[in-house]
Amino acid sequence: MSHAIGIIGATGAVGREIISLLEFRNFPVKELRLFASPRSQGLSIPFLDQTLPIEPLSEKNLQGLDIAFFCAGSSISKQWIPLALQSNCFVIDSSSTFRQAPQIPLVIPEINGHMIQKTHRLIASPNCATTILLMPLFSLHRAFQAKRIVVSTYQAASGAGAHLLQELKQETKAYLENAPYTHHLPFPYAFNLYPHNSPLHPDGYVEEEQKMAHETQKILEDETIQLTATCVRVPVLRAHSLSANVEFKQPFTLDEIYQLLASVPGLALFEDRAANRFATPRDASGKNDIFCGRFRKDPTQPNTLEFWAVGDQLLKGAALNAVQIAERQVQL
Amino acid sequence: MSHAIGIIGATGAVGREIISLLEFRNFPVKELRLFASPRSQGLSIPFLDQTLPIEPLSEKNLQGLDIAFFCAGSSISKQWIPLALQSNCFVIDSSSTFRQAPQIPLVIPEINGHMIQKTHRLIASPNCATTILLMPLFSLHRAFQAKRIVVSTYQAASGAGAHLLQELKQETKAYLENAPYTHHLPFPYAFNLYPHNSPLHPDGYVEEEQKMAHETQKILEDETIQLTATCVRVPVLRAHSLSANVEFKQPFTLDEIYQLLASVPGLALFEDRAANRFATPRDASGKNDIFCGRFRKDPTQPNTLEFWAVGDQLLKGAALNAVQIAERQVQL
Repeated sequence: MSHAIGIIGATGAVGREIISLLEFRNFPVKELRLFASPRSQGLSIPFLDQTLPIEPLSEKNLQGLDIAFFCAGSSISKQWIPLALQSNCFVIDSSSTFRQAPQIPLVIPEINGHMIQKTHRLIASPNCATTILLMPLFSLHRAFQAKRIVVSTYQAASGAGAHLLQELKQETKAYLENAPYTHHLPFPYAFNLYPHNSPLHPDGYVEEEQKMAHETQKILEDETIQLTATCVRVPVLRAHSLSANVEFKQPFTLDEIYQLLASVPGLALFEDRAANRFATPRDASGKNDIFCGRFRKDPTQPNTLEFWAVGDQLLKGAALNAVQIAERQVQL
Repeated sequence: MSHAIGIIGATGAVGREIISLLEFRNFPVKELRLFASPRSQGLSIPFLDQTLPIEPLSEKNLQGLDIAFFCAGSSISKQWIPLALQSNCFVIDSSSTFRQAPQIPLVIPEINGHMIQKTHRLIASPNCATTILLMPLFSLHRAFQAKRIVVSTYQAASGAGAHLLQELKQETKAYLENAPYTHHLPFPYAFNLYPHNSPLHPDGYVEEEQKMAHETQKILEDETIQLTATCVRVPVLRAHSLSANVEFKQPFTLDEIYQLLASVPGLALFEDRAANRFATPRDASGKNDIFCGRFRKDPTQPNTLEFWAVGDQLLKGAALNAVQIAERQVQL
């Protein structure tokens, strides 16, 4: 059985990856329809042996879809997902809109794929940094129970969309050529980094940091897990990195850690201690796996582990995870 | 009274900053002599109205100096500082060679300038990331007693020397022009980052991370302070950043934190919460002050504070701190 599929936000960084993944993974596509904002109208995008036009979003246009991938941001999801659901479409939302709604599953298939049921019409896909943290963490949590996590992120430009990616490239080029450049951020981005600029809450944490805390609890199905994050945007084109310090309730050995991680699908240990070589964003760019390494016992506190994880936030952090959710649902 | 001064490593990134600072801060210089490795022989460097030649290091050449700044790396310090001390020179060492020697003071003048005595012949200047962490932390530690610190760094290319700065610029230029480039690191650096590649110890920590732990204890004169770090090199030209999560023994309020930090010399609060704007490395480049902000109470643990700090690692992180040590010593 094959499906009529819509991608809402088809010209964005995540949308384009979903198109490639549907093709590359031989997803059973009967019809693919691409939606984007008015400024993308007139564009067309190749898929298999076709060239598909970009359509505008409308109530009528959304009809007849079996599966809709929403990757155009929160305001589009908020406005259009209720309409898509009315026509009995299965929706995978990559925005944060429904992630904390109690009745909506928030799914990383390798971790809690069992949450997806045949009757579900809407599944939320998590924040990219959360996914990169949880891919190495979930099996360790099941074995030793994570108690408190301190995480710092190193997030790539493309996590904020294709426009920031272009800004980074163009501004860096101008900087190296001593050419003038009017940057769109309130500060230069070339060879620079900055605390994540999602909305700042009165408690001093930005939304991105709060997402990591809340989504970790929901995906691991444990509201007692405490997580505090510092999210930072770095001058990297693609792939997020993070350092994590995790206190567990139970004692562990590093041998047990490496053994548990050896068999996690979608996770790859990337380290060569003899060569002092660990995963970098350029290693992870374009790869489906989340890379992890630098596992070490934190000597400053009992039962505490530190590690390093890197992943392509457009793939497992967004597009791949959404496609995996769809793959799982159509197999039910 | 003015002094005969030598800079060992005068053509390196830190050495050049020391030359500028001596000039700019009107250090009482009777004579300035510049030393560097054989590959820099034949060069000359301007200082005030003179043009100074680069001299080779030799036992004879080191004689007659009142003050010697060593900023040419550990092996040069190890070999030549004992000889400089024999001729009764006052030595400031920016390398890690003597930092952990119990009888050698490790000094950030704003924090423990009282350690410098007239009779001292050798003072060590700390690791750059440690200095950037401790400038905001020390007054908070005195008030509330730091117990455990989890830190992640975002370290600039120039921290590894002028050659890595050039590599980052040239490789990025080649990347943007689709030109071939043979990188000297075991991985690309353009738009990339990597776990700090100082020697990896069997416990899984790299030397840079261990330095931060040991030097923090020594400078704060408290061996009970626990610190664990993840050090990362980012594609930034100049100025290190870090995120710190600090558990104190005593409770605190954010008002108390901001009040304590308002009057620390060499430290500047850099935050505009309404504009969601905090310090970036480009803000801190070329500045003497360490910038800090994003102070927030970590809700996951009692008495725990998080913050963000950025500083020019060539200035306060290295050259400025060394010159400040010399300034203090000559005033005794």
